[in-house]
Parts: sequence; C-alpha cells; structure tokens
Amino acid sequence: MKIAILGYGNIGRAAEQAILLAPDIELAGVYHHNDNLDTIDADAVLLCTPTREVESFAKALLQKGICTVDSFDIHQQIYDLRQSLKAVAEEHKAVSVISAGWDPGSDSVARAMFLSLVPQGVTYTNFGPGRSMGHTVAAKAIPGVKDALSMTIPMGKGVHSREVYVVLEEGADAKEVEALLKADAYFASDETKMIVVESLDSFCTVCHGVHLVRDGESSGVANQHLEFSMRINNPALTAQVMVSCARAAVRLQQKQQYGAYTMIELPPIALLPGDEEQLIRQLV
Amino acid sequence: MKIAILGYGNIGRAAEQAILLAPDIELAGVYHHNDNLDTIDADAVLLCTPTREVESFAKALLQKGICTVDSFDIHQQIYDLRQSLKAVAEEHKAVSVISAGWDPGSDSVARAMFLSLVPQGVTYTNFGPGRSMGHTVAAKAIPGVKDALSMTIPMGKGVHSREVYVVLEEGADAKEVEALLKADAYFASDETKMIVVESLDSFCTVCHGVHLVRDGESSGVANQHLEFSMRINNPALTAQVMVSCARAAVRLQQKQQYGAYTMIELPPIALLPGDEEQLIRQLV
Repeated sequence: MKIAILGYGNIGRAAEQAILLAPDIELAGVYHHNDNLDTIDADAVLLCTPTREVESFAKALLQKGICTVDSFDIHQQIYDLRQSLKAVAEEHKAVSVISAGWDPGSDSVARAMFLSLVPQGVTYTNFGPGRSMGHTVAAKAIPGVKDALSMTIPMGKGVHSREVYVVLEEGADAKEVEALLKADAYFASDETKMIVVESLDSFCTVCHGVHLVRDGESSGVANQHLEFSMRINNPALTAQVMVSCARAAVRLQQKQQYGAYTMIELPPIALLPGDEEQLIRQLV
Repeated sequence: MKIAILGYGNIGRAAEQAILLAPDIELAGVYHHNDNLDTIDADAVLLCTPTREVESFAKALLQKGICTVDSFDIHQQIYDLRQSLKAVAEEHKAVSVISAGWDPGSDSVARAMFLSLVPQGVTYTNFGPGRSMGHTVAAKAIPGVKDALSMTIPMGKGVHSREVYVVLEEGADAKEVEALLKADAYFASDETKMIVVESLDSFCTVCHGVHLVRDGESSGVANQHLEFSMRINNPALTAQVMVSCARAAVRLQQKQQYGAYTMIELPPIALLPGDEEQLIRQLV
C-alpha cells in the first residue's frame, strides 16, 4: 500500500522512518501544509499537522476517496470529529482513523480492554514524567516568559503536578511571572512549581511515559489488578501508531467498511503487517 | 441478549456471576455436558467445558445458528480450530469467538498491540506465580503421586521454573518420584523443584498473574519499553473474558459478519456493554 505524509515536523519525520521500515508500505511522498492536495497519489495520508487543522485536511482528502489517519488529541471533541468525518468518508467510500496516537490511541485500547476484563472498578491514567504540549504552550504565553517547558509529573491515582521550567525575559520579575502562571487555567487546579533556568537545552522534550492501573472485580471477584506502562520517545511512538492505523484504514476500505473509526473500534490484527494465519499462530 | 452456560465447573460458576452482574445480558440457563442441546434457547453459549470437548459442542451449537464462545487453550491448535468452526459458523449464519481467556485471549491482544507499537523488538511473556493446569495433571499422573500442584514461577525473559508440591502415596520413594517427575516431557526442559507436603489444602489454586514486556524500536527509534501485568483470580478472569466476548459474538452476528474469530480480530469496543457514543467519549 502507498502512504503519504502531510506535515513534516517531529511526527512527520518519525512517520517517514516508520514507513521506510514497514515491509508492506511504500512512501508516496511527503507534503507540506500548503502543498496542493490534488497532486497526492496515495491509498492513505498521515495528517502530521497541528490538531486544529486535522478536520479540514481530512475532509479534503476523504472527498477524493483517500483514507486518512490523524492523532487529533482534544479529548472532548473526538466524538464530534468522528461523526463529521464519518459522513464524508461514507459518502466517498473511504476510511478515516482518528485520534491514533498513544493518548488518545493505544492508551484508549488499554482502557477498553481493562474495562472488559474488570467491569466493576476504577482506572487511573498516570502520565509522565514528560513534556505536556498544551501546558508548555500556555506557559510560553505568560508575559515575561521567553521560553518554557512544562513537565507532567505523576503523583499517582491519576493526579499530576506540573514542573514548569522557565527562561525569563530580561527584566521580568520571577515572582510576578509565577503568580500569573499559577493563576492560568491550565495550571490553577494542579500543584505547580516554577523553576527559573538559563536555558532549556539540557531538557529532553521527547521523553514520555504512562502508567495505567485498574483495580476491581471480574465475575464479581474482587482484587483483580491490571497495569499497563511504557517509557517512550513520544513522536516516534505517535508516528508508529499512525502508520499501523493507516494499514487498518486501507484494509477496512478494501472490505468496504467505510467510515471513521477510533482505535477502540479496530481489530488489533488489522494494525499489523503480514498474513492473518501467521499472525494468529504467532500471537494468539 | 440471552447467554447460556454449558459446563458448571470453576469457569461455569464464575461465568454465572459475570452474567448476573452484566447490565445487558440475561442468563439463559446453565447446562451440563450431557444435557440435550436442543433445549437451549440462547443467542450465545459459553463453552465452559474441558478444552478437548470444545470443538464438537461448538459445531453442534453453531449448526443451530447459536453463537459460541470458548477458552480453548492448546496454542498450537488454535488456528485449525478457527478454520474448522469458521466454515460451520458461516454456513449457519453464526459467530464463534475462540480462545477467549487470558492466555490465549487478552494477553494475545496485548502482544498484538505491543507489536503494532514497537514493530522491531522482542516480547517476553512471563507467567505466574500460579498453578499450571497442564503441569499439575502431568505431575498427578506420575506413579507414587497421590496428589500434586505444579506452580509456574517466572524467572524473567520468558523463562519459567516449576515448583511441584506433591503428596506421596503411602510407601512411595520420594527420590524415585522426583526422578520420574524431572524426566517427564512437561518438566524435562525447565528447572524443576519437587517439594513433598502432607496436604495441598493451604495452597491457592486460583491465584495467577502475568507480566508481558516488549523492548524495541518505534519509527526506528530504540529503547521503547512497554509492560503489561496483572494479578488475578484465574477462573474469575477467564469467565469474565468469555462473557465480554459473547457480547462481541452476538453483535457480529447482528452485523452479519459470520465466522470464527480470535480476540485479536475483535474491536475492543465490541466487548463492552452500553452505547457506542458514550464508550468513545469515556474511553478514547
């Protein structure tokens, strides 16, 4: 199958490597945001664009019958995006896999599996330590901040604190900046610590991880305990998930199961290269 | 949906509880192995029978258009069972979900997801500590053994040792029994320790667990590290997985996607009760 990449930031560059290493996928080109989409000749396109640009690019490509994959990550808007892209995909006989990263994405699959194994119970998703994109952008927007990096620190039971490393603008008052930061909507409800640094060069911006825990009952029996955790290079994993989901998108299109899907709606086998029989013998 | 149970051992009894706790499932009866299958009125039947009886019961029920779920666990024969039941299910417009336990079963899903996230790497499945059914049966068959329980002890990197707790028959020679045990095909290739005890009453036969680890590369970037682990009551989890998969079987039948499926071929959302929109909003 032929897969193209739209957008060439951290995710787009990692996706290029993932495609080059995939035994069953041919790279159908790398396109920039402002390229003419009519020149794209691919079975599917990975939308490695900012999240807010996903919907319009996806619609334009689906209308041409080309499948799309994105890692749209605004949790509250995922269902609406799915409904919006589903209509276009069905009309034009294409498939869109949305929110295909690690959270939303593979963590969502873990949460769904955990719920099916332990229907009565509680799940905690603990992120990090790792950089939060949203919080970093919010910190950078505070007056007096020249550069910033917001780390998410897991405190357990789904609670997180924020460590915000800040390079101040010349003449900025650290106390004032800290007060503004802690009052910001992104930080107001979490324990937040601001640390002034000379430079952010020594920080890892791609290191991340998650620890998902579920405790509860299966068949009415208590004390069932499930855990999923990972330590990862963030863009490398996100891009890999997108490439695996592109495979599923093209296969669903071949089976005429047109529409828009989140990862919990995909059979895991559809994400993998190779023969069905061999995969079942190897994995089941 | 109406789900019946065939077989009333550890798994059958746990499945009864799981069904009673499921908001969307009605218990359509509990049947014994030698009951007349013609009296069963259900959308799906959970085959809580010995593994070797699964195929004939499944075929008999599928031929009546009734879906089946089993936890068939002889790894080498799973693909052949799937092919055999697929033909019958397709002919009679039914769905069979096979090998729906935790390994094979939910562990298979974890292995498939891990492979899709980290395509280059190595996965280790570490079982236990917990009782191995197969090894326990083999130990009980050794001359001089009155009763036995074989524990699987994880040594890391997919290697396991065996601790075999044995109640000797009167007059049996412990050294002779140990030599026979260690020569048995089930134990010959693992480090095996035999421990003579007066009684097995103080051992937990339902406690079990697993620790799955994958290390490797995503998008060509190394040192991606994934883990899945659980500590569980074994029959309670197995039965719960079967009940969740019965839900998927009936839904696939409603969608006319007849055939036989392993768990890696099922969308995780199909295992869960409730409305699709609500599940996507909650989990993704």
